[in-house]
This record gives sequence, structure tokens and C-alpha cells, in this order.
Amino acid sequence: MTTLSPEILGTLEGQAIELPSWAFGNSGTRFRVFPTPGTPRDPREKIADAAQVHAFTALAPSVALHIPWDKVEDYGALRSYAEDLGVRLGTVNSNTFQDEDYKFGALTHHDERIRRKAIDHHLECIDIMHETGSRDLKIWLAEGSNYPGQNDMRARQDRLQDSLQQIYARLGEDQRLVLEYKFFEPSFYHTDVPDWGTSYAQVAALGDKAMVCLDTGHHAPGTNIEFIVMQLLRLGKLGSFDFNSRFYADDDLIVGAADPFQLFRILVEVVRGGGLNNPDVAFMLDQCHNIEDKIPGQIRSVLNVQEMTARALILDREALDAAQQANDVLGAHAVFMDAFSTDVRPALAQWRESRGLPADPMAAYAASGYQQKIAEERVGGAQAGWGA
Amino acid sequence: MTTLSPEILGTLEGQAIELPSWAFGNSGTRFRVFPTPGTPRDPREKIADAAQVHAFTALAPSVALHIPWDKVEDYGALRSYAEDLGVRLGTVNSNTFQDEDYKFGALTHHDERIRRKAIDHHLECIDIMHETGSRDLKIWLAEGSNYPGQNDMRARQDRLQDSLQQIYARLGEDQRLVLEYKFFEPSFYHTDVPDWGTSYAQVAALGDKAMVCLDTGHHAPGTNIEFIVMQLLRLGKLGSFDFNSRFYADDDLIVGAADPFQLFRILVEVVRGGGLNNPDVAFMLDQCHNIEDKIPGQIRSVLNVQEMTARALILDREALDAAQQANDVLGAHAVFMDAFSTDVRPALAQWRESRGLPADPMAAYAASGYQQKIAEERVGGAQAGWGA
Amino acid sequence: MTTLSPEILGTLEGQAIELPSWAFGNSGTRFRVFPTPGTPRDPREKIADAAQVHAFTALAPSVALHIPWDKVEDYGALRSYAEDLGVRLGTVNSNTFQDEDYKFGALTHHDERIRRKAIDHHLECIDIMHETGSRDLKIWLAEGSNYPGQNDMRARQDRLQDSLQQIYARLGEDQRLVLEYKFFEPSFYHTDVPDWGTSYAQVAALGDKAMVCLDTGHHAPGTNIEFIVMQLLRLGKLGSFDFNSRFYADDDLIVGAADPFQLFRILVEVVRGGGLNNPDVAFMLDQCHNIEDKIPGQIRSVLNVQEMTARALILDREALDAAQQANDVLGAHAVFMDAFSTDVRPALAQWRESRGLPADPMAAYAASGYQQKIAEERVGGAQAGWGA
Amino acid sequence: MTTLSPEILGTLEGQAIELPSWAFGNSGTRFRVFPTPGTPRDPREKIADAAQVHAFTALAPSVALHIPWDKVEDYGALRSYAEDLGVRLGTVNSNTFQDEDYKFGALTHHDERIRRKAIDHHLECIDIMHETGSRDLKIWLAEGSNYPGQNDMRARQDRLQDSLQQIYARLGEDQRLVLEYKFFEPSFYHTDVPDWGTSYAQVAALGDKAMVCLDTGHHAPGTNIEFIVMQLLRLGKLGSFDFNSRFYADDDLIVGAADPFQLFRILVEVVRGGGLNNPDVAFMLDQCHNIEDKIPGQIRSVLNVQEMTARALILDREALDAAQQANDVLGAHAVFMDAFSTDVRPALAQWRESRGLPADPMAAYAASGYQQKIAEERVGGAQAGWGA
Repeated sequence: MTTLSPEILGTLEGQAIELPSWAFGNSGTRFRVFPTPGTPRDPREKIADAAQVHAFTALAPSVALHIPWDKVEDYGALRSYAEDLGVRLGTVNSNTFQDEDYKFGALTHHDERIRRKAIDHHLECIDIMHETGSRDLKIWLAEGSNYPGQNDMRARQDRLQDSLQQIYARLGEDQRLVLEYKFFEPSFYHTDVPDWGTSYAQVAALGDKAMVCLDTGHHAPGTNIEFIVMQLLRLGKLGSFDFNSRFYADDDLIVGAADPFQLFRILVEVVRGGGLNNPDVAFMLDQCHNIEDKIPGQIRSVLNVQEMTARALILDREALDAAQQANDVLGAHAVFMDAFSTDVRPALAQWRESRGLPADPMAAYAASGYQQKIAEERVGGAQAGWGA
Repeated sequence: MTTLSPEILGTLEGQAIELPSWAFGNSGTRFRVFPTPGTPRDPREKIADAAQVHAFTALAPSVALHIPWDKVEDYGALRSYAEDLGVRLGTVNSNTFQDEDYKFGALTHHDERIRRKAIDHHLECIDIMHETGSRDLKIWLAEGSNYPGQNDMRARQDRLQDSLQQIYARLGEDQRLVLEYKFFEPSFYHTDVPDWGTSYAQVAALGDKAMVCLDTGHHAPGTNIEFIVMQLLRLGKLGSFDFNSRFYADDDLIVGAADPFQLFRILVEVVRGGGLNNPDVAFMLDQCHNIEDKIPGQIRSVLNVQEMTARALILDREALDAAQQANDVLGAHAVFMDAFSTDVRPALAQWRESRGLPADPMAAYAASGYQQKIAEERVGGAQAGWGA
Repeated sequence: MTTLSPEILGTLEGQAIELPSWAFGNSGTRFRVFPTPGTPRDPREKIADAAQVHAFTALAPSVALHIPWDKVEDYGALRSYAEDLGVRLGTVNSNTFQDEDYKFGALTHHDERIRRKAIDHHLECIDIMHETGSRDLKIWLAEGSNYPGQNDMRARQDRLQDSLQQIYARLGEDQRLVLEYKFFEPSFYHTDVPDWGTSYAQVAALGDKAMVCLDTGHHAPGTNIEFIVMQLLRLGKLGSFDFNSRFYADDDLIVGAADPFQLFRILVEVVRGGGLNNPDVAFMLDQCHNIEDKIPGQIRSVLNVQEMTARALILDREALDAAQQANDVLGAHAVFMDAFSTDVRPALAQWRESRGLPADPMAAYAASGYQQKIAEERVGGAQAGWGA
Repeated sequence: MTTLSPEILGTLEGQAIELPSWAFGNSGTRFRVFPTPGTPRDPREKIADAAQVHAFTALAPSVALHIPWDKVEDYGALRSYAEDLGVRLGTVNSNTFQDEDYKFGALTHHDERIRRKAIDHHLECIDIMHETGSRDLKIWLAEGSNYPGQNDMRARQDRLQDSLQQIYARLGEDQRLVLEYKFFEPSFYHTDVPDWGTSYAQVAALGDKAMVCLDTGHHAPGTNIEFIVMQLLRLGKLGSFDFNSRFYADDDLIVGAADPFQLFRILVEVVRGGGLNNPDVAFMLDQCHNIEDKIPGQIRSVLNVQEMTARALILDREALDAAQQANDVLGAHAVFMDAFSTDVRPALAQWRESRGLPADPMAAYAASGYQQKIAEERVGGAQAGWGA
């Protein structure tokens, strides 16, 4: 059995992956959202489910909120509720894609009334962050247009910068703004922040507290994502990851499910660039469990990240450097693949047990009866989804 | 002004493009469906709107139905209603992607009860076709899986063939089955009919009354769609088109909006292969007017197809053949581009007027007051969408 | 250490992967072909190198030839030379992309003289096959056009069928024709056999001795290749694989290097569909070692296929079936990933040793001194490449 | 006939598109470079051919050089030769992809000797620029790796910045450096400058004389290129265009041939962002005439750019703005498409004649006998290609 060094285990012990509250609600495609028994009906039930993931893995100590989906009367109470369950409230995600007013834009809109409303929504999010103790405000800009000519892309870019400046100005001393980019969807001709270059240019103009959020599913086909990870780390602007995986568009599948080797390469660059266990670089999931069970879906996800991190950490850097210096293409590639091909699962299972965690968190969760319990108890009321 | 020959005008006069009833209901993305004033609340209102498109263009004499979205008590009455408005009921589209039972498959499902239910749904559609006078049953197979290993693709393919045979057996003498393929969505790992080859192999095994449906938005990036049009015409298996356009995935934008040159190339191959005004090859739209007005969106769409058909028809085939025979790459390309670059709009406007149609159908519709009328009248009730 | 059952080892023992003679010559991009010391200068030296791959792995008992690159006076003598080195001569590949006459087409050309020449070239290849004892004639149709309008795609398709029929008619009783498809390149607008559907339609019209060749690098971005493998096996028309890997276009990288999980999924479908150790389904490599050493590049490639075959064979089919039947998405995926995540390398190394093979063929080759020997001996003369 | 206003004609009169000297030499794919009668054998013959393009169109007053392909003893004499023919020498392109030393990198190489050599090559290019009177040094960084693990991407990025700084320091007062990015090829795993973000980050760190070069063929499938044009103009960093078109990868087809609507959209953004006839934004072609005649291929290309510029200029900005402000999606799109659909060719032909130019430059060139003349005269010697 491959063993993991104390140093590597120490590093793995520090790993924390934030869970998105919305992963516990229902999701689907434009064609259909299939409901599931036991789905949470309010933010507390989402947090309770997230706490299960952490309880079985010790990997997910915080939960990201989405406003307005997770709006509550008393955020202080929600915070206490979470902390009692052993998790923290994390990143606050704004939403400018569902209000009727935002049909044609929000932070980029030419109508000052609507743009003001969108800015104010973000200021409200910052207010919530003070109550929840959250550090990061994440902005995914779902804005754009569907037809050439529909909008003035240039003017929108300028208005976006102005809007972001107003939001940025409200950030607290220790708070940050992370700006997510996305190749396309829900807009089909142009998106206002479609690539890392645009996000980088926008946040660089704001200041040190503004960073880029890299969602692993938000790129054009064939994009070398680990290169972008490397570049943003080099530029000091990689603020956070939204992990998931994809075969086609923004499929939002379980991270590591579609291309485990890509996840490995990304984590190798994270390690290489000092992004692991670095407070500047937040690890988050952003996924949709359309047809699979949600809590085990999240458990599988954080385990996948952990497993690939372990493989990235056992990469023999000295041997790799030597082969690279010698222009030994096959030799360097072999060192790289050796780390990827190594089965670290038995060692991780053993280590989990040594920490009082289940060796197999998936099996342990299945055996816990929690899924049956929520399926039975959560009857009546409206299941949470992307609208609530 | 470029003129169009009597022969070309005669051909254009025969052009008919079927409208999808669902284009008049609300649609959107998984993130949001924005409602619009005046949206139909039942099949009759959809047909009334479709009839408007035909009234202003003489291009859209029939309306496709979607079952169960367009279920009514009395299809004979619906048929009369449509005919009174000057349009026919056309293709019947089945739906195996929204029932809870179909979460993991329908015509491909390993559970015989569910597969039986899906087959029966299609038999019911055929019954409806007899009442509506429809010729074509269109099957878009939204089935597949999201994760490698989730399903046995091979067994599903065999069950699909068996299901289709049962459906095929029920077809009337003059009825057809058209099988649509789609690259991906709503499934993100595998789709049971993902490409024209699979659709072709499946329908070829059924018989002469089974054909392929080509949706212009359902291909991998970079696919040469006109090549597939050519091939299916050559094989005698192009049953129908679902027209729309896309920049990324299945964007379902207005046909010709994203890449007008591609639409031109497709229509050149249709003409070349004898697919124009050929009863075997049905022209249909399949689009989503997420943010634009629906009726003018449909008018714009049929006009785009008409305009590109006219450009395809003025292609100087003799000059093209001569240049091709001479291996004159630039010469042949120039002949081809000359047809595409020619502005046929004035000639088409003049011709419309000569037929008692508005020269500018978009302007005429806007001036008609119909949009205001339905916005005022259609208050209350549930607006139609993809769920109803 | 994971162990491999006797049954699995027996299956692995039967595995044979054909090597392409051209992999041992120089290759590159349109920008540059970098030479390498020791590169063969004639077919015999290529075969000698290929024999090394087999000697260290017992996986590569045959070598594919490319005509005219591997033209010799006496094929019988070449055959004996190969057999003395422990390998056979395999598939014969034709070439219709380099002769001046073929600039605008070959088997599809409108000029009957040129088309005749191209057909005759294939008849010559069949004659060679009789001398070399080869079973398969592989046709990669590099024909197409660069500009819309340049050619009549439909007429070319018909001429292609006619040309193939003439070639097919000459095949010996036990010989086959395999028709390769490719998404694009060297043509940039249309390719005459761009997808599996076209290849399938063409060979189905020929007869039982005509099959499809699937090159893993010849698909549009995002294509689910294992689905095509499944479908062609189901249709009884998967004649051969050209293995390689890619990140972008037809990169021709070492098989398994770009997406090892994809290679695993392909081999799972091969096993599922009865394609393993099935004489109807030939395994071949088709790669370019532009910057890495060629012989170890080929050794690495066959080892990658072997390793992924082993992982595919340890897939717990019973557990997978049970989870699939239960619609247990995460469970089925877990069974699938468990096979992929298992490190079979130690077991394979042990088994190799038990058969008198080196545990680590890469290291053994490096230690053998062969590379240094050919670098020293093969001085003078023209290094083989894609032109010779 | 659509007429063009004096203001628009004045703008068009100022348009200048630089031709690449290498477009007149032979080019092809990795499979084959087909020669053509009349192909230049040295830089003077290339310039003579380029001068023909300008003579027939008045659109191409300068020629870009490629070093070492266009190396001569006396650049002053070459400059005079060009000026006597009515054209200027333009951008100097460096080459770090063909020397044996650059197999694994040049400006990014870990070997200081090789990196020094690559930097010195660029300093030599700057020296040449002083002699030729060129303003721009264009760097296309063909560097990267083929296999994951082969190289340390991060260290290469830092070395690249260091190399560029040394080159930048040598630029004359009025000289510039433009850094081109490319998605992939000739490297197939990672490319050191793969996207506009990387090019932007690299040149922004250099200073005002460093800009980005946007090659229209160097993007991932589906990329909204006009968005990048808009963004780079907004950031003041769009230094130059390399125009061409593509269906798949970097096909280097005639600009406007594959997607004329995309070219239109790009030029609309150029006009919108003040990039037309702006000395900061150089227009260049970068194409390969693999199978078509080269001089008429270049004439067609500059005419395509001119035609699409004219369509972009007739766009009714007031009507567009009004529709955009009203959120009138279909109205704005219609204004946009109206400009694209308008046939400006007759007006351009008339205007050409009024300036003493041929109405139809393609026909005039064909009638001139120049092609026959060079085919007869240029016999013997080695035809120019990408190696010379």
C-alpha cells in the first residue's frame, strides 16, 4: 500500500472545501427539475445537510449562502445554528439573474434605476456578510445578450466597472469581492464577464481586495484550465475555485467525475503555485445533483478533491525537475503520471480512521440512516431549489 | 435591384415552414423563465398566434403540437379551430423527459413498466395524429445519463430499437416517424441518440416510414451541418429539419441569427439534393424566444429561411460547376459567395406586395395592434411554458 | 497489491497492438519537423525498431506498412526480415494525399484519370497485401475542400462509393477494407469521410468485408467516443482502432496521455461489446512522436493500452449491473471509478516478470543500449518521415 | 443600388491592410505542401507580388517580413526596391520555432544559452527594423509542451517576462512590440501565450510600447472574438490584427471566407471602439493559400475586409442606440442585420472606378497576365515556403 508522509497528511488535514447551500436543494435543466425525497425546505435544513458532509469527512467546515435563496430574518441566529452543527457560514453569493428587472442586465444595465437596484442588492449582501461573519462576496455575472446588436458591449463593460467600484467601496477591512467568469449561459451571444482576462482586468482596476473566481466548468472546449490556475496564482489574483466537472457546457457534475486527470493537473498547479491551504485561495464546490442524491453527492465531491490533492502532493518534484531540466519529455511525463496513477485511497482510508473518521465516508453516511430520516421527516412545504 | 426569376418565385411560393406551438409559450434557461405579457394560456391561443405568423408571411401554414403540453379534450375541435384560422395541425411531438418515471430513461429504460408506459405514450400520440390529421410523429429522445457507469449504453440501444419497432408498427399507412438526435442536454455524459449516425442506424432498421430529424442546433462545435444534410438526402433519410441557430450549445436562437452563412450553405445543399418543396423533407422551426417577443420572433425566423432560400436559388449552378470542374478554387468560391452576398430583400418585398402580402411583415405585424390586444386580453390564468 | 485473476491475465496475454511503421520516422507540425538521432532510413530499420517494442512488451507482434512510404522491391524478403525479428507485417495503409495529382481529390475526384489512378493505387496495395500476408487495407481518406463552393460534396460521395466498390471487388477471400473517418485536416471546410456515420454508410453499402476504422483523435470536441465504439460493435462494423490521444485537434499524442479516463471508458465498452481479443477488431496505434523518443514512445503507448485494459477487466460487472438496475447513480459510478482508480501496475509488473519479460519495459529498453546503438550506426542517408 | 456617403468613402480611403510576405510562398499542412507555378523564390519576388495586390486595390501599402525567411544582405536596398514598387516594408516577425535549439522553448527556455540566443534573435530583428523603417516587432510565441509534466509552466511564464523586458528595452522611440497569442499548435498540451489574458498581462507589465496582437484564427471553438476586440480597445492594448478565417483550428483561410458575419461583427466593434484608421491598431493578414492561387487569394482577402468595413460603417448607430435603450431585442438585431445584409459591392465597384482602380480587382488581375508571366519566368531555384 502506498503510504502518505506525515508532512502530506498534515497538509491534507488543513484542507477545507466550502459547500454551496444550493447543492442541497433541487436542481435540473431547463427541461425538468426532478424533486427528491428529503430535500431541504429552508436554509437551516440545507445547513444541517451540509453539516453531515463535514461530520463524515472533516473536509467541509463552511457553507456558502445564496441571496435571496437563503434569506432569513435573523442571520445571527442562522450563524449560531450552523456553528452548533459544527460548520461556519461562508461566502455570500449575490443573484442578479432572476428578478424581472434584470432581464436585460443588472450591474451593466443602461437603466440607472435597475443598475442602482443591482448595486444595492450587493450592498445588502455585504451587510449580511457582517452578520454571518463571511469574508467573501462572490459575484457571478449572469448578464449578457442573446443577439448580435442587442447591446452595446463596450458601454456595459464601463458600467460594470463603475458598479463594481461602488460595491468594492463598501467592503469591510477583511472582506473581499471575487468576480466569477463564465463562457456562456444563460446568455447565448455575449456574456459580460466571459473569460479570466475580463475578470482579471475588472478586478485589477478595483484593488487588492478584489480577486478572480475560477469555476472549473466555465471555459471553452479544450481550454487548458490548469494554465489559468497557474497564471492567476502568478498574478496574485486567484481568489477562489468553484469546483465541478463537465463533458460539454457548464454541466455542473461532481468534481473529478468527468476528467479526473484534469482535476489532478489543476491541483498540481495549485500546489506548485502555493495555492493550497492558502487563505487567499478559497476552495468551493458549485455543482448540481440533478439526478443523484445530494448529500452523498457532496461527500463524493470533497473526497474526490482530497484524493486528487493527495496524488498531487506525492508528485516527486525533484525527479520531475531533473527530467524537465534534461528535456526528457517521456521521463518527466512518467514522473507526473506515476503520481496520478498511484492509488492513495487505502492510505487515506487508514488515515481517516486514525482521526476518528469513517474509513469510507460514503458507506458510513449510507449506514447512518440520515437519508431515510430526512425523507420521512421533511414532508410538506416547498422543497428548496434555485428559486428559493 | 436584384430580380428573382418567375421560376424562383414559383419555388418560393411553395415553401412551407411549420411552427412549433411551444415557441409561443414562455421559455428560458435553468436559471430563469421570464414571462411576457400576452403569452398564450392554452393550445388555442398558441394556434391563434401561429396563424398570425402565417397571415403576415404566407410561409407558415401548419403548427406542430407537443403532447402533453397541447393536450385537449377534443382534437377534432382543435383541428377545426386551426383550419378556421387558416392553418393546419402538423407534426405531433412526444415527451419522455418530464414525467417522474422517466428520470432515468423512457424508451430505453431497463424497467419494463416504465418502458411500456413510454411506448404507450407514443401510441397515444399516434391516436392523436389520426384525429389531428398529422402525418409525422417526432421523437426527440432526451434520454441518457450523467455519469460514466450509470447506465449500460449498449442495452439501452437495443431496447430503444425494440421500443421504436412497437411504435412503428402502429403507424398508419401515410404516417411517419422522425427520430431527432442531439449532441447533449439534458443528459451530460451520454445521450441515447447523440448523432445522425445513430438516428440513421435506428431508423434504417425500422423501415421506409422512419426518417431522421436534423435539428440545426444539435451538433458538436465545428460540425459541418450541410454535409450531414447532403448525406441524409443522399441516403433518402432526411425526414425533417428543426431550424434554429446557436453560438455555443443548443441555444435555440432565431434561425439564421447566429451564422447566416451556415443557413445559406444548408439551403444550398437542400436545393442541390432535391430537398426543397419535397414532401419527404419537412421544414420546421424549433426555437426559444427567451427574451424577445415571440410572434415577431417567429415572423423573423420564417423570413430568414425564405431569404436564404432565395439566395440559395440564385446560385449560378452552371458557373459553379464550370469552376469546380476546372479546379478553380477561388472562382468556385466567388460564384458561391456572390449568391450569398446578394441582397434579395427588395425583390422579396416587391414580390410579397404583388401577392397581397405586406412588403415588410415585421412592420405590418407591429402596426397591426395584435400584440397589444393579446397583452390586454390575456390576463389571468397560467401562461403556457414548457410544462403546459 | 491488487491482484489480477488468472482469467484476466489470460485475456491480457492475448492482447496484440499493431505498431505503425511511420511512428518510427520523423514527424512534426506544418511549422517544423525536428529530426532525431537514430531515426530509421528505410522500412527495414523501422521494422527493426518495432521489433524492439515487441521484445520488451510482448504486446506488439505486427507492424503496419504505409504505401508508398514503405515501398520495397521485394515484399517477400521484407516479410521474412520481419518474421526473423519476431514480428509480422500487418495492415497496409494507402496514401492519396501527397501526389500532385491528388491536390483536389483522389477516390472522389471528378477527373476520371485521377480517380482511376487512385483506385489503381489501392489495387496495388492489395497486391502488396498478398505478398506481405496482410489482411487489412486501411483507407484514410484525406480528401475534401477548403472553401464553401469549391466542390460538389454530393457527387464526390457517389464517386467515393463507386471507387470503393472497385477496390472492394479486388479483395481476397480473407482480406478486409477498413475505412477511417476524420473530423477535419488536411482539409478545412469539408472532409469526404468526416464522421462514423459516413464511414458506416459507405462500408455498409460494400459488404461484410468492409468495416469502419475508429481513430480516437478524429472527433469533434466533446464527442463521446466510447458511445461510438459501443454502436459500431453493436452494428458489427468496428474493424479497427487507431489509438492516440489529443487535447485539441488531431494531436496524435501517446494514447492515454491526454485523457486516461477516456481510454478506460473506451476499453470498458470494448470489453462490454466483445471487442477484446476479437479478430474482427484490430488494435493499432497511430501517433506522432514529434518531440519525444520514438521507440520508448511506442513502448509507453502499448503499456498504457495494456494497463487500461487491465483496469477495464477488473470492473465488477455484477456490482455495476446491480447498481444500474437500482437506478443508483452514485453507486454505479463508484463501481466504475473503483476499477479506474485501482493501480494495476504492480500486478502487471509481477506478471511480466513471470513471463520472462522485464517488469519495467521502459527502464529495460533504456538500459539496453539500443537507442545509443542506432544513434551511432544510423549516420548518413535520409531519415524516414512522412514523405518516405 | 446602396450608396456610400462621402464620409464613409473617406474613411474607406484611409484603410490599409498589411500583407504577409509568406502568403506568397508555398504553404500546406503537415501532410503535404503543394507547390504552385510562379511562386517567389526570394524576398524581392514576394514583395513584387504583394505590390500587385496593392496596385489592383489600393488597400495594401505595406508588406510584413519574417526573419529569417526574408533575410537579405542589404535591407536598405530591399526597402528601396519595395518603395519603387509602391509599397513599404512593415512589421518584422521573429521566428523561434524552427531552429533545432528551440525544440523545447526559446524565450521561455530553462537553458540560459538558448534563451539568450532567442533574445538576441529579437534584438537582431529590431536592428533590421531600423533599416527597413518598420515600426512593429511581432512576436508569435510558438512555444509550449506536448505532455503534462513536460515543463514547468509557471517558471516559463516568469522567464518569458524577463526575456520580453530585455527585448522591450531595445525598442526605438517609435517602435512597438506586439505579442500574439494562440490557443494551440504547434504545441498540443500547453502553449506559453494561449489567450488574450496572458498576452495582456505580459505586455501590461512591459509598458506603453507593448501591445497585444489578435489573430482571428487563434481562439477556442465558440469564442466571441468581437468581445475581445472590444475589451482590448477599451484597455488600450489592441496593437494589431492578424486576419484570417477558420472552421476548425487555425485553418488560416481567407479572411471572411468561413464566417463573414463574424468578420462584420469584429469590424463593428473596431469602428465602435475607435480602432479604424487608428495608427495604434494595425490591420494585417496572416493566411495560408495552400490550394488556391496566392496573389488573387490576397486580393480577395483585402476586398473582403474592405467590404465588411463598408457594411460596418453603414450601420445606423442612432437607430441601434434607440432600439438598445428601449430593450427592443428584435429591433436592435434588425438594425444590425440590415447593415450586414446590404450589398455594398456595386457602390464599392463604382467608387473604385472613380479613383482610377479596376471595378473588379479580381477580374482585372486575372486579365493582366501577371500570373502567366511569373509562372513562365520563375523557373528554377527553390520556391519560397515556410522554411525560406
